[in-house]
Amino acid sequence: MLIVMHHRATPAQVQKVVDTIGEMGYRAKPMVGHLRLAIGLVGNDGGVDSARLAGLDGVQDIIKVSKPYKQVSREWRDEDTVVDLGNGTVLGGPEVVVMAGPCAVEGRDQILGIAARVRELGASVLRGGAFKPRTSPYSFQGLGLRGLELLAEAREATGLAVVTEAVAPEGVALVAQYADVIQIGARNMQNYPLLKKAGSAGKPVLLKRGMSATITELLLAAEYLLSEGNPDVILCERGVRSFDPQTRNVFDLTAIPLVKSLTHLPVIADPSHATGVRTKVTPMARAAVAAGADGLIVEVHPNPPDALSDGAQSLYPDQLSELVSQCGSIARAIGRSLAPPPELPAAGPASGRVVRDVR
Amino acid sequence: MLIVMHHRATPAQVQKVVDTIGEMGYRAKPMVGHLRLAIGLVGNDGGVDSARLAGLDGVQDIIKVSKPYKQVSREWRDEDTVVDLGNGTVLGGPEVVVMAGPCAVEGRDQILGIAARVRELGASVLRGGAFKPRTSPYSFQGLGLRGLELLAEAREATGLAVVTEAVAPEGVALVAQYADVIQIGARNMQNYPLLKKAGSAGKPVLLKRGMSATITELLLAAEYLLSEGNPDVILCERGVRSFDPQTRNVFDLTAIPLVKSLTHLPVIADPSHATGVRTKVTPMARAAVAAGADGLIVEVHPNPPDALSDGAQSLYPDQLSELVSQCGSIARAIGRSLAPPPELPAAGPASGRVVRDVR
Amino acid sequence: MLIVMHHRATPAQVQKVVDTIGEMGYRAKPMVGHLRLAIGLVGNDGGVDSARLAGLDGVQDIIKVSKPYKQVSREWRDEDTVVDLGNGTVLGGPEVVVMAGPCAVEGRDQILGIAARVRELGASVLRGGAFKPRTSPYSFQGLGLRGLELLAEAREATGLAVVTEAVAPEGVALVAQYADVIQIGARNMQNYPLLKKAGSAGKPVLLKRGMSATITELLLAAEYLLSEGNPDVILCERGVRSFDPQTRNVFDLTAIPLVKSLTHLPVIADPSHATGVRTKVTPMARAAVAAGADGLIVEVHPNPPDALSDGAQSLYPDQLSELVSQCGSIARAIGRSLAPPPELPAAGPASGRVVRDVR
Amino acid sequence: MLIVMHHRATPAQVQKVVDTIGEMGYRAKPMVGHLRLAIGLVGNDGGVDSARLAGLDGVQDIIKVSKPYKQVSREWRDEDTVVDLGNGTVLGGPEVVVMAGPCAVEGRDQILGIAARVRELGASVLRGGAFKPRTSPYSFQGLGLRGLELLAEAREATGLAVVTEAVAPEGVALVAQYADVIQIGARNMQNYPLLKKAGSAGKPVLLKRGMSATITELLLAAEYLLSEGNPDVILCERGVRSFDPQTRNVFDLTAIPLVKSLTHLPVIADPSHATGVRTKVTPMARAAVAAGADGLIVEVHPNPPDALSDGAQSLYPDQLSELVSQCGSIARAIGRSLAPPPELPAAGPASGRVVRDVR
Repeated sequence: MLIVMHHRATPAQVQKVVDTIGEMGYRAKPMVGHLRLAIGLVGNDGGVDSARLAGLDGVQDIIKVSKPYKQVSREWRDEDTVVDLGNGTVLGGPEVVVMAGPCAVEGRDQILGIAARVRELGASVLRGGAFKPRTSPYSFQGLGLRGLELLAEAREATGLAVVTEAVAPEGVALVAQYADVIQIGARNMQNYPLLKKAGSAGKPVLLKRGMSATITELLLAAEYLLSEGNPDVILCERGVRSFDPQTRNVFDLTAIPLVKSLTHLPVIADPSHATGVRTKVTPMARAAVAAGADGLIVEVHPNPPDALSDGAQSLYPDQLSELVSQCGSIARAIGRSLAPPPELPAAGPASGRVVRDVR
Repeated sequence: MLIVMHHRATPAQVQKVVDTIGEMGYRAKPMVGHLRLAIGLVGNDGGVDSARLAGLDGVQDIIKVSKPYKQVSREWRDEDTVVDLGNGTVLGGPEVVVMAGPCAVEGRDQILGIAARVRELGASVLRGGAFKPRTSPYSFQGLGLRGLELLAEAREATGLAVVTEAVAPEGVALVAQYADVIQIGARNMQNYPLLKKAGSAGKPVLLKRGMSATITELLLAAEYLLSEGNPDVILCERGVRSFDPQTRNVFDLTAIPLVKSLTHLPVIADPSHATGVRTKVTPMARAAVAAGADGLIVEVHPNPPDALSDGAQSLYPDQLSELVSQCGSIARAIGRSLAPPPELPAAGPASGRVVRDVR
Repeated sequence: MLIVMHHRATPAQVQKVVDTIGEMGYRAKPMVGHLRLAIGLVGNDGGVDSARLAGLDGVQDIIKVSKPYKQVSREWRDEDTVVDLGNGTVLGGPEVVVMAGPCAVEGRDQILGIAARVRELGASVLRGGAFKPRTSPYSFQGLGLRGLELLAEAREATGLAVVTEAVAPEGVALVAQYADVIQIGARNMQNYPLLKKAGSAGKPVLLKRGMSATITELLLAAEYLLSEGNPDVILCERGVRSFDPQTRNVFDLTAIPLVKSLTHLPVIADPSHATGVRTKVTPMARAAVAAGADGLIVEVHPNPPDALSDGAQSLYPDQLSELVSQCGSIARAIGRSLAPPPELPAAGPASGRVVRDVR
Repeated sequence: MLIVMHHRATPAQVQKVVDTIGEMGYRAKPMVGHLRLAIGLVGNDGGVDSARLAGLDGVQDIIKVSKPYKQVSREWRDEDTVVDLGNGTVLGGPEVVVMAGPCAVEGRDQILGIAARVRELGASVLRGGAFKPRTSPYSFQGLGLRGLELLAEAREATGLAVVTEAVAPEGVALVAQYADVIQIGARNMQNYPLLKKAGSAGKPVLLKRGMSATITELLLAAEYLLSEGNPDVILCERGVRSFDPQTRNVFDLTAIPLVKSLTHLPVIADPSHATGVRTKVTPMARAAVAAGADGLIVEVHPNPPDALSDGAQSLYPDQLSELVSQCGSIARAIGRSLAPPPELPAAGPASGRVVRDVR
């Protein structure tokens, strides 16, 4: 941390900063510049609360040098984290994982049908919302527990791992009971009680970047998960808010190589929410793989015009087929490949075991 | 709602849109333009899910005309909502209400001392966090229940109403028991389970605008509260995210007259979070009052350099004195005045009644 | 400047950075931190090109401490710059200056009529575009030279100073011949050939902040003007681009006290372009004065619905009257006052001297 | 265009809007909705100035349906524009064109050396600035005419086409004399006098998207060029301003398929300026090709740490080699290929013909 003094700061003001740094348990290292003096604070681990120093007279600026996150950083752990999704699929290794499914679970036929279809087309993971955070209180809010049961049934039938969202701390345990991966949505990226519960629920967590979250904030949100003891965190770029109403979001694909250079956690991309419109999903899925994404999460619906939510950005199944084919080619062009879909379970739903134990 | 067709849309595609609108229970009204055809959807109340139409072939664009919110709108209720804060202070009328206090409750002496001080200086409401949402898991997270108890004690001693934040649905009832106003923070503006609980907790709610929330999203979040039966909602502009790292946020003061033209709910401003730096709080508080804010919420600490959070943006008590004086002059210049602080309670803390009933 | 090394940087890489700093003529001052090493570069005046250092192996980050601008800074000159507008009005002192007039000069009757009217209502400066930068090539582009002549005639009739925009380097001399203040529009804030010409044209310059310009970029653009020898520069906040299509721009009023703390130049505000809609102009003009603006520039048209450009944000003359009255009250509330309009010239247009000499 | 009336608009106010539309030469088509009335304006071609209507009493909102641009649109011309760069390379067809070279021409050896090298590595076009728009007046501003001469010499030696920037209207003719493609930089995207000159200079124009330009504004800027008679316009996405200081810009790759759906003009991408840092250039170049870019423009320097500008984002020549190889694979994965570099001219610089005629 660097404390930049005002060009008219008095020696007494400088001394007060030096003394305060000492009181806080760190060392002060003044640097005399051309126009002003700056004081380095050394010996810190990124957790210094700068407000006390910022409040002192004569201080013009505080510049943070250390990163405020720890366990998510490459400094903490150098090798890539590889997350086991429980159905034989791993995320964070050389293979690129395709997650696909509807925005929301709408009924048994819908989810079982689309699950079978996306597995055939190359997906390894089934997505689908049972609890939906909706901007308007008058929109469809999901099937709740019944949705979770149907997702679990779809898993048993197809072998796909299931990712679905938890929206409140008290619902995390329930989601963890039925899902293989707990999703934290963009609107909840800084919902800290929810993060704490998700971090201790014993299942991998898929953390979506908030609508206007900086990379540092995304990594600090992930730090909440890791600090609860959960090493299996997957980050997801899904578009950030920008100034042009022509596009729903700006898909910040540069975040993929950037985040991967700062953290050991795997990073996937969501071209459906990032673009908001069906015709742009496949080109941007290709771009995400080319940029180095470890996976894709894509909305697919058996008949998008009938979807209860997100119909405009949901692919038709045939379009998923094209997306998988093109992204497979892109993956091979950069020396990777798509993760193959899981084997079809032998007995399928007859096994009777729908709810898995939390690991 | 207007469905704009592609310039090469076929008559069959147009007919399909017209038919679908009919199936959805609305009327279609085609308008033939110079370059393309648009189809008006009439008879709707703002709640139409456009995705089904957006998914049809030949549709280029969907333009929403009706507002998606209802009960918060001026169309629903024309006269201004005035919120009674329970201590004789009302918000939303001609008087401008000053809320002041520390970022967080840090201890008994701190909160009782600063409460007495801010009342003397002209505040009517005490702010102070017991549960703090913090970007880093390693930062001070608040005193929890003990903080609530101390806030209630400060209320009994000073007559100030108390506003404090709830961060999780299961904590709302507890906060409602101790506070006069339940605050929903910027990071939780779209935490829908939390909004639903707060909307049915029987106390006024102070809803802060999210970091990158549009005005429409802010009003839809308020709609969640009203749709739970709570008419006493106060909106708060606290700065939005922008591109210049030189300032923490951009204080969107135009939102004040704009929001007041769209909704009957009162709107206050938070110059502390909007600017992030002490020297800018007073000028921006003045600007907020000049723009028409119904109140201010300001961070004040007995000794900001020692604050456990937000020290850099907290005023010294003497600075609050100056702020109140200047904002009073501004209020009078536009025909308003500052709400006077409440009478000091006769028996004070000796009354023994610290927790109020939920209304 | 601080060069932050990667946590696995080798001693040889560190030495190479130290040596390079030496070759560049500065001193290197290494600081050993908890997790990584940083190297201070001292002896610089803000003009160091960091790219050479950023390109070295092992360098993770470059943090700039010195400001990159000089002559515009408070370090260079501490007391406020006061700009003499040539008609007895000065800008940058205790009085708040009102500039008003139509978006564009549309004809003789229009500009002479509105000039007389805005003077009566309290303005000291007449605004009006002769050369208009328009987003579409098919929009009205201004009257050109004829517009300049009419502005000069309006000045002779009213005593108002005239501010009008120059849009190309080769047009600056012409504008300087007719106007009292040369305006550089938001779209041209980084048009460097234009800035250089304007900086050497011998008239004060009004520099509008670019649509997404940071404060640092605004000050660097002003530095171009001062480095050409022109000390009479007025900065103008006019709204910046943001994410909410509901408002045309976000009016960044915090920039007013912030910019005034960094530079000695006066700062005015343009509530017309910042809000884009007539009903928001007056409240935001009040807010700008409350925040400390040294002046206002406001669009007024004799009959806004007939305006050839910017009709939606132009005030009716009666609305300017209300704005002046309210802003006068606000100014007095903070110990300032509005600059009075100039005396009406004795002989008016009969003087025959329409074009002034360039100072 | 849709004029949305206030919910309390009177019949007389509605009639006034209908009458005004008639006076403007269009037809009014009222649509009675659930909560309010909207009036369609039909018969327009996108060029309606809405301000006159927005200024009428009772009007709440104006919604634009027609696009404000014409000649650049797919409605105007359906098939893709293919631009001939004059050296046998065409841009806008199936082949992806690589443009490479230093930020600025720094001297004869530098530019001739790097030109030969980038041709060997697979580039077809040489980039290099002779006139540099720099944020600070104290930064290197380019070699000017001498730079143009050296670029022309490099073209004669290598067969590469040359793209270089024009920064002022009066300099366009000179640039057109020496260059094959005139670049308009991001800061000048809305410099209309410059666009008009470039549109009539007889050479293809490369138009970079402004730092916070919407897609509509980019296309309107291109419309300026086409309306001057120049059909050979290449658009370039180079990153837009966003809220995270961690990255210089956000690379808006979704703009590539989006812009290509709206216009017939070719679109290229600039991963150097979009990312600002060398290590991110190659992954984002891959992503741009995967998203459908028709070309890439990349900064390469013989020794980036010695570059006079943009050193941190300039590739080493060996890194260009890797970029070309990877982007070639990506192009093939989506059924395209990289344009091969031009043949080496037979006599090279000995031909004596350095300046080409303007076509």
